[in-house]
Amino acid sequence: MATVLRNPLLSPSPSTSLTSSQSHPNHHLLRFPHSSKPSHSRLQSFFTPHTHTPSNLTVSCSQSQPSPRPRPPYIPNRIPDPSYVRIFDTTLRDGEQSPGASMTSKEKLDIARQLAKLGVDIIEAGFPAASKDDFEAVKMIAKEVGNAVDDDGYVPVICGLSRCNEKDIQTAWEAVKFAKRPRVHTFIATSPIHMEYKLRKSKEQVIEIARTMVKFARSLGCDDVEFSPEDAGRSDREFLYQILGEVIKAGATTLNIPDTVGITMPGEFGQLIADIKANTPGIENVIISTHCQNDLGLSTANTVEGARAGARQLEVTINGIGERAGNASLEEVVMALKCGEKFFKGLYTGINTRHIYLTSRMVEEYTGLQLQPHKALVGANAFAHESGIHQDGMLKHKETYEIISPEVIGFERSNEAGIVLGKLSGRHALKKRLEELGYELNDDQVQNLFWRFKAVAEQKKRVTDADLRALVSDEVFQAEPVWKLGDLQVTCGTLGLSTATVKLYGVDGNTHVACSVGTGPVDSAYKAVDLIVKEPVTLLEYSMNAVTEGIDAIATTRVVIRGEKNHTSTHVLTGETVHRTFSGTGAGMDVVVSSVKAYISALNKMSSFKDTPST
Amino acid sequence: MATVLRNPLLSPSPSTSLTSSQSHPNHHLLRFPHSSKPSHSRLQSFFTPHTHTPSNLTVSCSQSQPSPRPRPPYIPNRIPDPSYVRIFDTTLRDGEQSPGASMTSKEKLDIARQLAKLGVDIIEAGFPAASKDDFEAVKMIAKEVGNAVDDDGYVPVICGLSRCNEKDIQTAWEAVKFAKRPRVHTFIATSPIHMEYKLRKSKEQVIEIARTMVKFARSLGCDDVEFSPEDAGRSDREFLYQILGEVIKAGATTLNIPDTVGITMPGEFGQLIADIKANTPGIENVIISTHCQNDLGLSTANTVEGARAGARQLEVTINGIGERAGNASLEEVVMALKCGEKFFKGLYTGINTRHIYLTSRMVEEYTGLQLQPHKALVGANAFAHESGIHQDGMLKHKETYEIISPEVIGFERSNEAGIVLGKLSGRHALKKRLEELGYELNDDQVQNLFWRFKAVAEQKKRVTDADLRALVSDEVFQAEPVWKLGDLQVTCGTLGLSTATVKLYGVDGNTHVACSVGTGPVDSAYKAVDLIVKEPVTLLEYSMNAVTEGIDAIATTRVVIRGEKNHTSTHVLTGETVHRTFSGTGAGMDVVVSSVKAYISALNKMSSFKDTPST
Repeated sequence: MATVLRNPLLSPSPSTSLTSSQSHPNHHLLRFPHSSKPSHSRLQSFFTPHTHTPSNLTVSCSQSQPSPRPRPPYIPNRIPDPSYVRIFDTTLRDGEQSPGASMTSKEKLDIARQLAKLGVDIIEAGFPAASKDDFEAVKMIAKEVGNAVDDDGYVPVICGLSRCNEKDIQTAWEAVKFAKRPRVHTFIATSPIHMEYKLRKSKEQVIEIARTMVKFARSLGCDDVEFSPEDAGRSDREFLYQILGEVIKAGATTLNIPDTVGITMPGEFGQLIADIKANTPGIENVIISTHCQNDLGLSTANTVEGARAGARQLEVTINGIGERAGNASLEEVVMALKCGEKFFKGLYTGINTRHIYLTSRMVEEYTGLQLQPHKALVGANAFAHESGIHQDGMLKHKETYEIISPEVIGFERSNEAGIVLGKLSGRHALKKRLEELGYELNDDQVQNLFWRFKAVAEQKKRVTDADLRALVSDEVFQAEPVWKLGDLQVTCGTLGLSTATVKLYGVDGNTHVACSVGTGPVDSAYKAVDLIVKEPVTLLEYSMNAVTEGIDAIATTRVVIRGEKNHTSTHVLTGETVHRTFSGTGAGMDVVVSSVKAYISALNKMSSFKDTPST
Repeated sequence: MATVLRNPLLSPSPSTSLTSSQSHPNHHLLRFPHSSKPSHSRLQSFFTPHTHTPSNLTVSCSQSQPSPRPRPPYIPNRIPDPSYVRIFDTTLRDGEQSPGASMTSKEKLDIARQLAKLGVDIIEAGFPAASKDDFEAVKMIAKEVGNAVDDDGYVPVICGLSRCNEKDIQTAWEAVKFAKRPRVHTFIATSPIHMEYKLRKSKEQVIEIARTMVKFARSLGCDDVEFSPEDAGRSDREFLYQILGEVIKAGATTLNIPDTVGITMPGEFGQLIADIKANTPGIENVIISTHCQNDLGLSTANTVEGARAGARQLEVTINGIGERAGNASLEEVVMALKCGEKFFKGLYTGINTRHIYLTSRMVEEYTGLQLQPHKALVGANAFAHESGIHQDGMLKHKETYEIISPEVIGFERSNEAGIVLGKLSGRHALKKRLEELGYELNDDQVQNLFWRFKAVAEQKKRVTDADLRALVSDEVFQAEPVWKLGDLQVTCGTLGLSTATVKLYGVDGNTHVACSVGTGPVDSAYKAVDLIVKEPVTLLEYSMNAVTEGIDAIATTRVVIRGEKNHTSTHVLTGETVHRTFSGTGAGMDVVVSSVKAYISALNKMSSFKDTPST
């Protein structure tokens, strides 16, 4: 075999402590720790650490940890501190609506836990009326995450979305009521085009429905009710003031103003919020919220302009995911407020920014919505200059090109912790690292992972965080297995007919073997699986990444399929019945094995989806 | 073999004509053509076509084609129409600086041709002093694209970037001077932190250098000189007015204001432009330009706010690529100006938006910087709602959720053209489609592609645009081959030792065969290649996508490598020597074959890189 230098590994970083410049009493400059390699393998280089503190920096981002001000106590319709801005995360609702991003309940719960660590004020956990699966996930999150009160009394509000009808609202309440702080969020469209063509209702009818349904939600015992006039960005101003005034009287505590189609310019959206604040009767008794779609790439700007104009709740998603071009992203909005603190006259959030990076990675992995390398803040290149090594160290000051140190968003943890796992690492070290990565696993799960980990460590000098994430995803966050891969054998190449033989174990305990020819190794293996499973599906997407530092690393494959049979749910905005798609991931050091695991994972997820809408 | 319904293909769309609503004389509502499947496979569904025209839409995006106003004649320092905004594309300079995005000269030329079709006013073709390769690419683009004057007299300005020294400026001029409209762009940092720690120069020294170097550029015969005060966003205002006033006197015709670290808020950046416009002596005789980085996700907003405040040149990149979080993206900026036409009081560009989609795909493919599915406008989900089929057609009006019809950015072409290639398609049909996709190929290239096309068509009913792009990338836009894949044979699976045998043809005419064992089929094949090539490299990235509609489609693999030997160039901003990384792509119906082709492609690209900086 060849002796090739492939991905030489850097030794663990010697130094770890976080130092803060003392030159600006209120704007600590956070330093990147003195290590040369972040855990994310695609980030290839950072500048060499600088050696002294610059004396005349004109601007830099303010410190993020510990949060300078305590989070004010939670009262649904009022915030004791006028500078505090609530963060409402809808990754699990609006984000999950992205094509192919369906998650299992276990995955959703894991993300909700992570959102609580991040300190988001409100978690929109789903649209409970969409399907039985959605209902159960929201209920589980309400019970578990919605009751985990921390030492400071913080516990996230758990919110469920519902259309403006009794059945939806009742269903949402049944799911969220188990939380310590439950919220029902209901909406109805108010723009001329939506009222005429989607609702086929008059203005008067729409007001009457909104008023009645907000009252209905309150009548169930829910004292935290959010109302959204859908497509507010294209709605008539006077009509908005009127309907919002009516729902305030009916008991709404938060009014969310969505730019549903993402068409407003930042100046326009700020003006919309200012106008609503100035003209809606009773507005001083409720919280104004923003919800900005990203169709023109302006959602972050619109959201922070909304805050400047008086909004005190901002609806966002991790990584900016969501339908079409997605939503304003939590990380951009929170960091823009922080970096522009002066411009925003001291507005602040309760977000612990050091959990941003891990949360972003988790959402990327579970939804399969991969970020572009130039995604602001959390993309692989966000903190990297032109790849390669800045050997001569000319650039002594990272601040010349870096406004936020990576550790502010939690980028350095593996270096800081100094943990590098290898084949001598024990069960305890593995468990500890997994906990630091945000996974809460039981002993059985850790045990299963440990054997997988050992097998990888036998072949790789160093098992990275990315490897561990791939293993957790492959081992823990899978649907109940209906089919399980036994063995696989493949021959392929330029010379001949690719042939695969597959052995699967069925839930019935039987072993099934089939072989097939195909155009390539993956095609032939999938065809062999199809011969056994006999479930007609359409393969919509196939992608693979070697998540770590080389081809001898673990490759993660992701597929998205759609079944021929009906696996449907209700679309919250359009009310239409939509065919759900199912993603599956598989990890392995052999790309073909990894591909087959992903396919079986998607087939299993599809089989376990419960599509009967709950009531 | 299994009979599985995999990716059933929809029949070609029957209807194609573009209809415009007549309800708003100045805001035509563009319709999506009456077809149900766009060419991009990941875009799974669109709404069913609506059947009548809504009467009371409050807002929608204005029509994009034909452009309502003619492009004013080009004069470097003046635009006859005060509402016209120039678009300066720096995909080939700032975009190419992204890690791993290095392109071959052929690829750069192809993108430059596409940018000219798009109608960008200025193409920044590169940083000629970076390396011999960069110099030659700029020169070639200046000669070819910079002289292709169209019937309306339009030809893009070809611009070369240079630091503020004679050698850089001379080199840039030597490269761009072949264009009909050459421009030299020089810059020097003006913020306190950059002047102190990067330049180690005083304000007076910086002004003197800027003035002298702008004069030097003019003295070479270049009458179109752009000057940028780097890190303007963090520079002292009074100092900015002073240095800008001096370079205007020295002969600069465009003043570009970069928010180099992406820290300004939209309101702040707009104010910066307004202040410069109000306070710089002589500013009425030059064009003000914006250059906004995206570190906080605000680059598009900052750019359009700059235009609102008086900037008449906007620097952007296709897909928003660039170092770190990239730049303002051309498509977002252009469409925001178009959709917010009223808000921007009639500002307009000369961009033919119908070429946006193809340009975006080409840049994505050549740079390997894959877009996230929720990338505004050009991401795979940008126009798709929750995947699946909106079967019941409840949503009669796309405008309820769609502000821009996909065809406005060129999304429908394959449907509109009605062309679907299959195994009966001839050479002529293939050539025609390739031209429509933006490729200008000679007869030999078409001939080679035709054989590849036939081989694919034998196995697939329908060869899509994505397939064709993969083939072009694999066949045409490769570096001069040093090594070429002969044959490959692989055995792998869960049961045993993955083994690969590889046959390569060397540039010396010899045939080399090697075999190796590895952890998987790709690892073993790469190790076998290494045994033959004997060039130590680090594999930095590995990813694969089945670009079309299933696993029996063509899979495209992309790898990024860094050689152990020095392949260096000069970083334009930091002045540091950086190790270049090289990407390679390979396409094939067998994922392992595709992977090996990508690896060889990257090795070939690395071997052909000329790193001697030119003078």
